[in-house]
This record gives sequence, structure tokens and C-alpha cells, in this order.
Amino acid sequence: MKNVYFDNAATTQMRDEVITSITEVMRKNYGNASSSHSFGRSSKSLIEQSRKTIAQYLNVSAGEIVFTAGGTEADNLVLRSAVRDLGVNHVITSKIEHHAVLHTIEQLEKEYGILVSYVNITAHGDVDYKHLETLIQTENKTLVSLMHINNEIGNILDIKRVANLCKANDALFHTDAVQSIGHYKMDLQELQIDFLAASAHKFHGPKGVGFTFIRKNSGLKPLIFGGEQERGLRAGTESVHNIIGMEVALKSAYANMNSEADSIKALKHYFIYKVVKDIPKVTFNGQSGDLEKSTYTLVNICLPVPPKKAAMLLFQLDLKGIACSKGSACQSGSSQNSHVLTEILSDTDLQKPSIRFSFSVYNTKEEVDYVIDVLKAFIE
Amino acid sequence: MKNVYFDNAATTQMRDEVITSITEVMRKNYGNASSSHSFGRSSKSLIEQSRKTIAQYLNVSAGEIVFTAGGTEADNLVLRSAVRDLGVNHVITSKIEHHAVLHTIEQLEKEYGILVSYVNITAHGDVDYKHLETLIQTENKTLVSLMHINNEIGNILDIKRVANLCKANDALFHTDAVQSIGHYKMDLQELQIDFLAASAHKFHGPKGVGFTFIRKNSGLKPLIFGGEQERGLRAGTESVHNIIGMEVALKSAYANMNSEADSIKALKHYFIYKVVKDIPKVTFNGQSGDLEKSTYTLVNICLPVPPKKAAMLLFQLDLKGIACSKGSACQSGSSQNSHVLTEILSDTDLQKPSIRFSFSVYNTKEEVDYVIDVLKAFIE
Repeated sequence: MKNVYFDNAATTQMRDEVITSITEVMRKNYGNASSSHSFGRSSKSLIEQSRKTIAQYLNVSAGEIVFTAGGTEADNLVLRSAVRDLGVNHVITSKIEHHAVLHTIEQLEKEYGILVSYVNITAHGDVDYKHLETLIQTENKTLVSLMHINNEIGNILDIKRVANLCKANDALFHTDAVQSIGHYKMDLQELQIDFLAASAHKFHGPKGVGFTFIRKNSGLKPLIFGGEQERGLRAGTESVHNIIGMEVALKSAYANMNSEADSIKALKHYFIYKVVKDIPKVTFNGQSGDLEKSTYTLVNICLPVPPKKAAMLLFQLDLKGIACSKGSACQSGSSQNSHVLTEILSDTDLQKPSIRFSFSVYNTKEEVDYVIDVLKAFIE
Repeated sequence: MKNVYFDNAATTQMRDEVITSITEVMRKNYGNASSSHSFGRSSKSLIEQSRKTIAQYLNVSAGEIVFTAGGTEADNLVLRSAVRDLGVNHVITSKIEHHAVLHTIEQLEKEYGILVSYVNITAHGDVDYKHLETLIQTENKTLVSLMHINNEIGNILDIKRVANLCKANDALFHTDAVQSIGHYKMDLQELQIDFLAASAHKFHGPKGVGFTFIRKNSGLKPLIFGGEQERGLRAGTESVHNIIGMEVALKSAYANMNSEADSIKALKHYFIYKVVKDIPKVTFNGQSGDLEKSTYTLVNICLPVPPKKAAMLLFQLDLKGIACSKGSACQSGSSQNSHVLTEILSDTDLQKPSIRFSFSVYNTKEEVDYVIDVLKAFIE
């Protein structure tokens, strides 16, 4: 049986050089980065080098990068502290954010009674910028939290527009950039974002590590209290090997970004071409069928399959060795519809099965052919 | 130059089998444990097996083990949710807890105005149980948070006595067992603890992973919100390789616990014998000089060195390749005195340098000889 991994938006295969570097650190650098002896200093120097590397790619200072256990923790850190410590009493977000943002905001609404506004989303899954402009006109202390690239439908936010709008209206701006860091370059001097969340395992790095960009003098305070690690912003012994793995993964991502983006984009283009040719009634969710308006890493398609047969589709794909997703990984185990698609699709389309296929540099055209053949056979 | 690592209470060298298993998982199991396809199921099955293994060692059910990014996060999860979700308005703790507990409680005091009582600590660093009995007689909804083994002075809490006391008085009991899990066996059916925090890197596992024991039906809610991982108690993609590394480390710890404990205890005994013989005026902080009343993994000694020379001691030890600590790792970078020693030592003794030496199965008698020689030479 073939094994085709088309679920790279859920997580990615680690690069060989990432695995090698992690293994080396585990063998050689076991000091606690907070210890002042040579073992500790050696670990400390490794993680500070990682911090510098990452900061340089984003054009920020090293002190603005805070390591976390992943994107979800990074989102929680920013959102909770913004409300608790910065006096934010109004959060603008959208109904198609990742649950790490949505559920955290719902919790803060319960705990602090903050006002939460949801910006309208178009039928194509884009933010209604005019509506955002209206929502942001307020006397409230406002934080906007909108993701850079949607993990289910791949829509790309006009992040500069949102950043400028926030700046002009004295609102803070947080972006969950988990799907973009390592795939798109960002210059955070140019982009006036206040906070950003990233996760290593989405760019061929290890699971269980990520980072938050926290702009200098933001006043943010910890989510996790204890030791003085991360300049007092995140307590807990640093996962040295994971941090170094993240650095190596990001280095590889940056070194190869243009060529890899080109080849993955070509693969997506080929997928679109084939699926449209072989399955005429297919439609694309969000902007994922548009190579310019969505990330090159994924497509999300709605298939002309009657409801009765729909339940069998994912099962069949799995049987054929094809890994893909009907929503985000967090939901794929559940029987609920994707909250993103529920927001943008018609009731008719929601009855049909929608599948996200997401690509990486490890995928091939032959895999696309195979997947389309399996889909075609299922539908006929 | 020799390299002697006597700072095993700060962190430990990873066992070879732990590194091997982590490397294998990184190569073979990159699926997201929340994905429903074969790649995801394979990761899911690995972490559920780890959960079972760990649960069996503690004699609890798998559903009572929640994976976290480490001991600090585990402490934060329990303490915050106990106050926010379980209605705890009174926390009893001690001034010699780890900062992961102390600073979190201070923060909760600020946020929620809870009452915090600090149980008296004897000059030997033991909990004053009579005082605890008094403090716990209250109409308040109370949580007791006391660590099993103190990370600086090694004192062992009479955990059964505290658990029974809490039970008898309808108080919840949380223990930071970061220094004991992997070194001492605990049967949590016998011990009526409600919550427990552990960290893999203290028992030759990877940094950046730990677990919380949360007794069934406790009503605890997440610290980190988002996806439905960990039965909804801790959002964020699981660090599969780190979790498997923790499982393997705990397996090795349990397989070898008696023999390793014996050999480390013999090493500590030898250290005590030598240091008393060669440095007559040395004293032991807390119970760390008593082989029965303190953990076999560490000693904390106060050295007859005048204040002027004291500042040079750690520096000299480091120059000689000796890794040890003047307090917990979180403080060793700072110039402040240990908050634990400040609590139990006289002003005169606080002027003298105190050093924690902490051992593992990788240490040898020759290393003890070397360290004592260096100490002796420095003092003479």
C-alpha cells in the first residue's frame, strides 16, 4: 500500500538535519540553561543563539522572542496577559480562528466579562475589512487577534492593512502565524504587529516547542509562573534540544524557502488542475483554489458526494494510505463539522464532504496522481 | 580538566535508551496525535501507551495522567484551576516551596484575593505538622500545596500524614513531586493526594515534558485553552517524542530503582563521610546530612569560609570543572540568597557559602574525592 502524507497543515515530517541536531544536543548538552556552571552556560548559549537566529529572520531583537511549548501556549500567553495585565476589555477576532485563539477568548470572556466582537467573514473566508474598520472605532482598550493564514482554507490575511489599522486606532494586534512562519517571510519592523505566535512542528521542526514574538515594552506578563526563565516571561526549564531543533528547522526553511515554495506551489497547481479535470463538480473552499489568495501549502475541496456516501470518504482515503483532514487536526477525531466551513459554506455544501489536502517539499506529483485516482474511483 | 556533574537536582543527563527512543520516534512517528488517519493513530497510540505505563507505576488510571511541558506548567495548571474553578479561597503552603508553586500562589493572591497561609518550617527545614493541623481547621475551601522532596535541602515530607490530614479536613492536596518521581515509588491509591506534578528531565528524561496527576472527577479545567488534547485538559499538539522519552526514562528508573538508589545513597554517604573528615567545621543544611530524613540524591553543605572569600567559591569550583549549585537552578544565575536557606539558616550561617551537590547513577567515588580535594584546598 502507498503511504501519502497530505496533512502537512496538521504537522510535518522533521527534516534530517533537525533530527541530527536534536540528537546531538540530547547527547552533549544536558545542562540546565539556568545553571551558572559550564554545563549550564553551554545550554544557555545554545538557546540564546537560537533566539538570535529566529529574531534575525523576523528582523526583531532577540529579547522580543519568547520560547513556549508551542503555538497554542503562545496564543494563550498573549491573549490572557493582554486582558489581565494590559487592560484590554475588547477583543476583535473572527469565527474562523484556530481554537487556540477562539476558546481562549471565550474563556477570557467568562472570566473577565470582556467584550468580544467577531468581524464578518465573506463567503470566500476573507475578513471583511470594512467591518473591521467599524468595529475598531471604539473607546474600549482593544486587541485584534486575526490569524495570518487560515489553517483550514488557506486564506491569507492582508496583515499589513490590519496592522496599520490597529496602529491608527491605538489597538493592539496579535496574529497566530502558525501556518505562515517557515513558509512566508515576515519583517516585523515593517509590519507593526504587537504579538505573534509560531509553532516549530508546522515547518519540519519538533513538536512541543514554539515561540511568541512580544514587542518590546509591551508590559506582557507570564501565563506560567515560577523561575526567571525567558526574562521572567515564561517559567520552566527550557527544552534545549527542542529549541535547537526549531532553530535548525527555521534555518533550513529560510535557506530553501524560494525553491521549496515554488515546487510546493507547482504541486498544488497540479492538484487543482487534476482535480478539476477528473472531478468536474468539485469546488474549492475559501480562497484555497486561488494560487495568489491562499497559501501554497494547502487546498480544501468540497466533493460532489451524496451525504450517505460522504461518511465513508475519509475512511476510504485512510484505507488507501492517504493522510488528509476534514478540518484542523484538533477536530478531525470528532464528528463535528469544521467551525471554519460552518461559517462560510451554504447548508447544501455543508452536506457534502470537504477535505483539506496540505503539501510539503516531501510530496510528489505521483502522489497527487494517486490521490486523484482514489478520489475519482470513490466518486464514480 | 575533569568534568564533574554534581547538579542532578537541577537536571540530569539523558539515558542512552531515552535518546535512542526519542530519535526513533522523530524519524518514524511524525503524525499529529489528533489526526484520525494512520499517521495520527500511530502517534496517538504511542502517547496513550506512555500514559498507561506512567499510570501503572503510580497505581492510577491512565485518564488521571495529563501531559504538560514540565513540572512548572503542571504546578500552574493545578493551582490556578483550583482557585478559579474549584472555589479554593485558601491555600496553605510553605516558604520553602519551589518558585513554580510560590510565585504562582503569589500571583493568584493578587488576582483572586485568596488567603495564603504559610506553614512554619523548623530549623531543619521540616514542616511543622502541628501548625499545619491548626491552619487546616478552617471554614475556607482549602488547598494544601507542599512539595514531596525539597529541591534544595532534600527534606522528605511525611506525605501520608499530610494527605490524611487533608482528607480528614476536606482540604485538597497538591504535591510538587518533581524531585521524587523516578527516584521514589509512590502508590497513589494508598496516598490520597489530589494532584501531583512531575518533570521528566529530573529522572534522566528529556527537558520540556512532564505530567500532572489529576484525580478523577476533580473538576479541574485547563491552563492552556484550544484543541481537545489531553481529554480537554491541556490544549496543544502533543510532543510525541518527548512523551515517549519520558516514558522510557521512567521505565528505566523503575527497572533499576533499588540498585541505583543503593549506589547513589552509598555515594552520598561517602561524600558526607569525606567532607566531615576533611572539612571539620562543615554543617549540613536541612536534613540533607541525615541519610534517612533526606533524599539520597543530594547534600547541601554550609562551609566555614569567610564572607570575603565566599564569593569566589562557586567560581573556583566551576574553574575546576565541578558543576554544583548554590540553590535551585532558577536562582543560581542570580546573586540573591536561596529563599529556602534564608528561611532556615541563622544570619551567621547565611554569611557563609552553602552549596548543593546532587548525585546520579553516573557519578563515581573518584568524583567525590576530587570535589572534596578541591573544597579542602580552597578552604585551607
